[in-house]
Amino acid sequence: MILPFEVKLAAGASLVENTLRDLLDARPLEGELYRPERLLKAMRHGVLNGGKRLRPFLVLETAALFDASDDTAALRVAAALECVHCYSLVHDDLPAMDDDDLRRGQPTVHRAFDEAAAILAGDSLLTYAFDIVSAPETPLPAEARLALVNRLARASGIGGMAGGQALDLAAEGSRLSEEEILRLQAMKTGALIRFACEAGGVVGGAQPADIERLGEFGAAIGLAFQLADDLLDLTSSSETMGKATGKDAAAGKATLAGLHGVDWTRRQLNGLVAQAEDILEPFGERAETLRQAARFVADRQN
Amino acid sequence: MILPFEVKLAAGASLVENTLRDLLDARPLEGELYRPERLLKAMRHGVLNGGKRLRPFLVLETAALFDASDDTAALRVAAALECVHCYSLVHDDLPAMDDDDLRRGQPTVHRAFDEAAAILAGDSLLTYAFDIVSAPETPLPAEARLALVNRLARASGIGGMAGGQALDLAAEGSRLSEEEILRLQAMKTGALIRFACEAGGVVGGAQPADIERLGEFGAAIGLAFQLADDLLDLTSSSETMGKATGKDAAAGKATLAGLHGVDWTRRQLNGLVAQAEDILEPFGERAETLRQAARFVADRQN
Repeated sequence: MILPFEVKLAAGASLVENTLRDLLDARPLEGELYRPERLLKAMRHGVLNGGKRLRPFLVLETAALFDASDDTAALRVAAALECVHCYSLVHDDLPAMDDDDLRRGQPTVHRAFDEAAAILAGDSLLTYAFDIVSAPETPLPAEARLALVNRLARASGIGGMAGGQALDLAAEGSRLSEEEILRLQAMKTGALIRFACEAGGVVGGAQPADIERLGEFGAAIGLAFQLADDLLDLTSSSETMGKATGKDAAAGKATLAGLHGVDWTRRQLNGLVAQAEDILEPFGERAETLRQAARFVADRQN
Repeated sequence: MILPFEVKLAAGASLVENTLRDLLDARPLEGELYRPERLLKAMRHGVLNGGKRLRPFLVLETAALFDASDDTAALRVAAALECVHCYSLVHDDLPAMDDDDLRRGQPTVHRAFDEAAAILAGDSLLTYAFDIVSAPETPLPAEARLALVNRLARASGIGGMAGGQALDLAAEGSRLSEEEILRLQAMKTGALIRFACEAGGVVGGAQPADIERLGEFGAAIGLAFQLADDLLDLTSSSETMGKATGKDAAAGKATLAGLHGVDWTRRQLNGLVAQAEDILEPFGERAETLRQAARFVADRQN
């Protein structure tokens, strides 16, 4: 039976959420002294929020290309990645950053708790991600865990996601070149999506050439993800998005979709999906779900 | 020639600062796309600020107990730890947290830049710490680097430093028991000092029993550090501290020094120094600088 992509995505999200729920248990781990209840609740609020879990899904599906004997490692790495993604949302929503009150129709962490709790919950989620990947409970060789820690840090730090958010804040009201917009987006959203796809390869024990290939797939769908996001910001209502829309234009932020218009953006999206499918060619039939993922990313309506 | 402790500490600080300066170079590392200049400047402002570098010094000195052939690994781990310590200062100084305008006589990061820059600089420093430890440029076996990543994450996350800061914020205006104050302090300041001492053992390839012993030394001087800090907050002026003082009492924060008074605190400090010296007994003469460090921590005037 061929399952619709949304059903597969939801099944993956459910597995990842169970892993996250276990990891955010009240019981301290060895070396931890105590888990303060309110901080833990703020972390859970930031993470267990009904997200689509696209990045973790990409970890699971790219790992599945390589016959892993069990999926504990992939699930833990996927959960760690989601902690990093969610930390970035918690901090980006803060008044000093994007100042958002709602996230997926729910109050953001600083609205549900307070700003200090949101800052510390974000910090703790980021820190926890590196704990999860490095811990012996992640059943991978030491070299693989170490490579994942290092790649995750580079994808999310100054030269990746955090740097991209800094560029994005600086871009308000300024005129970026097309090249600068592409770099900003490759950092802000692309780096973590690319990491998701490479991470599955590392978890699966893939050869360097295959990890590189998965990274290129990740870069293509990362760019598609951002273009689809820009398009939605241009065309959709806040009701279907569960968050404020039209904010890019209001903030004077240049986007490729805003620069070139809706038709150009749709053509670009089709081109990126075709490119992503080409990249997956050597993996044959097994990569079918990843092909669906590329189309899903380009076509998404929220 | 026997050098005074302050001279040794300053020499260590200088080595660590050179390492940090190199690490905060504008050139992106492999896997990084670009290092945005303003974010990099905010990170440097938060890190290259004339701190005493006590935690990194403890890494260097505990590692030196074990005949390392070169000190690159110890210096990189020390620098990573300082990135974590400084990220916590940058975030703790934010208006939503302790709301401090000055740090070591200089404007805090959010005053010198802005709040968004301070949040992202802190995030990026925390992330970078895990990059530094995990990278192949840190010349240690994969298992050792992995253990350092995991211990650092546990010492600084929800069950360590960040959790301690959450407890500290929650404690304002509430009456904590002595046990609760001890736990708060063991998390907020103790965990990272303990990590510093254990880390040197891991870097030096020490046996588990010696790493455990160094952890106990770290716990003793961590508590002494906090008691000395409380004492300074009770007794000194903001001029000698380079930051606001008397804030604990003003914020209604219970401290052990506030609870038991100055004389009791001084006796406790002497007891902790004696305990720290006892713990170091098996390391003999080589641990002399660490004994001096214990006395320095207990006696410090700023």
